[in-house]
Amino acid sequence: MDSNGFRNAAISSIEEIIGYYDNIETRNVVSTVEPGYLRKLLPTEAPAQGEPWADIQKDIEAKILPGITHWQHPGFHAFFPCATSYPSILGELYSAALSGACFNWICSPAVTELETIVLDWLAKLLGLPDCYLSTGATRGGGVIQGSASEAVLTAMVAAREKYLCETVPADLDGEARDDAIAHKRSRMVALATTTTHSSTKKAAIILGVRFMAIPVRAEDNYALSGPVLARALADCRARDLEPFFLTATLGTTDTCAVDDFAGITSALAGFVPAGAPGEVWVHVDAAYAGAALVCPEVQAATNVALVAGFHSFDMNMHKWLLTNFDASCLYVRDREWFVRALTVNQAVYGNAASDGGLVTDYREWQIPLGRRFRSLKVWFVLRSYGADGLRAYIRRTTKLGDDFAAWLRARADLFEIMTGPSFALTVFRMVGRPESDEDERNALTKALYDAVNATGHMWVTSTVLNGRFGIRMMTGVRTTEKEHVEAAFQTLVGAAEEILKS
Amino acid sequence: MDSNGFRNAAISSIEEIIGYYDNIETRNVVSTVEPGYLRKLLPTEAPAQGEPWADIQKDIEAKILPGITHWQHPGFHAFFPCATSYPSILGELYSAALSGACFNWICSPAVTELETIVLDWLAKLLGLPDCYLSTGATRGGGVIQGSASEAVLTAMVAAREKYLCETVPADLDGEARDDAIAHKRSRMVALATTTTHSSTKKAAIILGVRFMAIPVRAEDNYALSGPVLARALADCRARDLEPFFLTATLGTTDTCAVDDFAGITSALAGFVPAGAPGEVWVHVDAAYAGAALVCPEVQAATNVALVAGFHSFDMNMHKWLLTNFDASCLYVRDREWFVRALTVNQAVYGNAASDGGLVTDYREWQIPLGRRFRSLKVWFVLRSYGADGLRAYIRRTTKLGDDFAAWLRARADLFEIMTGPSFALTVFRMVGRPESDEDERNALTKALYDAVNATGHMWVTSTVLNGRFGIRMMTGVRTTEKEHVEAAFQTLVGAAEEILKS
Repeated sequence: MDSNGFRNAAISSIEEIIGYYDNIETRNVVSTVEPGYLRKLLPTEAPAQGEPWADIQKDIEAKILPGITHWQHPGFHAFFPCATSYPSILGELYSAALSGACFNWICSPAVTELETIVLDWLAKLLGLPDCYLSTGATRGGGVIQGSASEAVLTAMVAAREKYLCETVPADLDGEARDDAIAHKRSRMVALATTTTHSSTKKAAIILGVRFMAIPVRAEDNYALSGPVLARALADCRARDLEPFFLTATLGTTDTCAVDDFAGITSALAGFVPAGAPGEVWVHVDAAYAGAALVCPEVQAATNVALVAGFHSFDMNMHKWLLTNFDASCLYVRDREWFVRALTVNQAVYGNAASDGGLVTDYREWQIPLGRRFRSLKVWFVLRSYGADGLRAYIRRTTKLGDDFAAWLRARADLFEIMTGPSFALTVFRMVGRPESDEDERNALTKALYDAVNATGHMWVTSTVLNGRFGIRMMTGVRTTEKEHVEAAFQTLVGAAEEILKS
Repeated sequence: MDSNGFRNAAISSIEEIIGYYDNIETRNVVSTVEPGYLRKLLPTEAPAQGEPWADIQKDIEAKILPGITHWQHPGFHAFFPCATSYPSILGELYSAALSGACFNWICSPAVTELETIVLDWLAKLLGLPDCYLSTGATRGGGVIQGSASEAVLTAMVAAREKYLCETVPADLDGEARDDAIAHKRSRMVALATTTTHSSTKKAAIILGVRFMAIPVRAEDNYALSGPVLARALADCRARDLEPFFLTATLGTTDTCAVDDFAGITSALAGFVPAGAPGEVWVHVDAAYAGAALVCPEVQAATNVALVAGFHSFDMNMHKWLLTNFDASCLYVRDREWFVRALTVNQAVYGNAASDGGLVTDYREWQIPLGRRFRSLKVWFVLRSYGADGLRAYIRRTTKLGDDFAAWLRARADLFEIMTGPSFALTVFRMVGRPESDEDERNALTKALYDAVNATGHMWVTSTVLNGRFGIRMMTGVRTTEKEHVEAAFQTLVGAAEEILKS
């Protein structure tokens, strides 16, 4: 494909993408293909000779789109959103054209520097304390990771390094030191809660350290409270376990609960004081709801200023902030621990700027070596929307969730809100008949869930809270307008009434 | 930005990208900006109001491109290539438009199924044994990872799981089992060589297991041989260490050496027989040179059929196979070990297809949960070029490397080949004057390296082999033609003669 072939192919692709977005509502939200559908449609081997673009492009509508679940569909109320926007797509386009494995500053200075700058912009928008800025006093800063899972893994590796440095006696060496470290490793435990995202457990598995999920309580709104954490820490100490890492969540997956940062701070102070050797590294997982921090009222409500006392913070612009997957923005208060834990030097990567310590080499802040130019789309989005545009979007979609919850309340004969509305997410269930027991309410709610998802016009996911089955209704997708949420509510009402009749 | 705004912006971006490629030779290969250049050009905060696209786009040429090192420049002879091609860019464009966090099959069946299919296509092209196909008898298959670093980390996690399952006595439970596992962990060692890519060491650090780099020898062409491995294994046993993982390399970073697969097979057979409990998991890192396996003559020369006796294999289409970063194609002989090691279930991700075991959920084959639609660009590239087109490209760029080495040999008065040509990479140095010692040869070669890189027309990187400084000349970039390699050679000759004169 030469320049002119690319011009024609690209223009045709752009038109197809515009048509896809303009008419997305005409498609089923969720793909209805059967497992194995695509193998029946494609040859078993790559072609021997190259094919013209026109033949390839026509297979997108014919063979690929039937197998796509449309995350940008206005009826997508499942999980959390996975964002995109036109400026962000342009960012991916340029990033692909400027492809490079930019592991070092010199491999493309703009890739490193733009990332540092736009992550500072974002930190200020989110109201993060200054210690998370690249210019802050504690040598902090931000780095774009591929996902929140990679962010928590990276943070946990740094936390383990810090803990071992601080707690293994410095005067040991050789075999004695190895033994002491092996013993420590066998006692170290990463803490989370029963509503923390599974990525923390996965990171602990990868590191080979213990993992403990602290049960949260309905009366704490399924969030981690100070007293519950204090008891868990005391329990660890009684069992000779050494907590070195805690994930605190701003917006849990199931219900968008926010852990009590003030309570966590005081519980930890009673265990190992902040800054003392062996303190617990606190990582804040704000993967989804962190986007809402662009609004000052959310900064105040979530006590985000308290993360100044924690160690790392992560939010995904690619969930609720109009930016393509992947853009997981990880901030650290002291980047030194990342660099100490993750730097592996090899002669071939040496260069004057790196060796002189003049620049940031983000390969030392992440698991992989190479990296894409991910900050370009972040820059395009922040500039295209502006701070006001981002706030307006978050407030608009949050309001849709509040409206939806109000409508649920107005039909208390049918529905009961279990949690929320919180960050455009409400969890609810059917109340059933006056004589319904919990099993029947679960069965009715499950029937409602199946019925509305079967329509193809909307997609909701579910959760189970203290044995009670609930439907999660999320209204954060960019294309979702009030009319779509109203239509979804009417679908729910109609289906619920039908289920009660039968 | 509405549909029409996107149309105009995208068309303008496409033209800018075409202009960039058509005129890339007029730019310096390596960016010449000073550290911190971009902070001086950008505001300290995101704008309050959104900006028009025209203002954003003009900053690409004005502020970003000066900070780009051009990996697609025909004078880019550094490291290994980081590929792109027009069909691949279109793949990224569609992937961005169809954005979703496709962690489960149902989250977009096409994303999972196309990946399985095109990785089978690729495995056949590379001549991998059938056990690495998704349809093979050993429950194998391929998965696209973000980088070779993530691939080796994932493989090592699976290998650790397998080793612990096979070697910790099954009749232990509770505290006794925990103790046995903790003891094992403290003795387990991941093996590589002094020329293995640093990602294996990084993975061992992340897992918290020991790492041992086996020294390779110049007489083995800097590759791992059977006898050297056998000695290292015996040494581990003597020290009560338990080797559970070995990275074997097809195309090392420094010199593109290929480890001796036959020798490795027989050394391992003499340690723990293949298939016996506690066998060493062998991961093949073919990140760069694996691309050349599309040519049958390379399959034969590298003994790739022997990887049937190993456990995992990884190559990056994004290096030398015309596909954008990221597309690290990881194959496993038995996917069960990935799934056992990496599956962490959470209620919110449950669905009928996954729960029924009907489909592949790639989140269980990788560190992150979410994933981009990366197979689309692979599909576009395989179809646009066809098998013949890919082979022609590999043979053309390999030949450029062979030509370059022949020219070096013809100027034996100036240059000495240290290794290669191997997979479009030659490592060479200056011979210096008859009376030159090793220090002087190093100094002359370093002076040559600095001089040619200072021209801006070409970029080479360096390595150190047994204390001898060498220049790596790589000719694998898509835009590099014979005239560019000739020009680079003339630049080298001119600079070398100049250095010898002064």
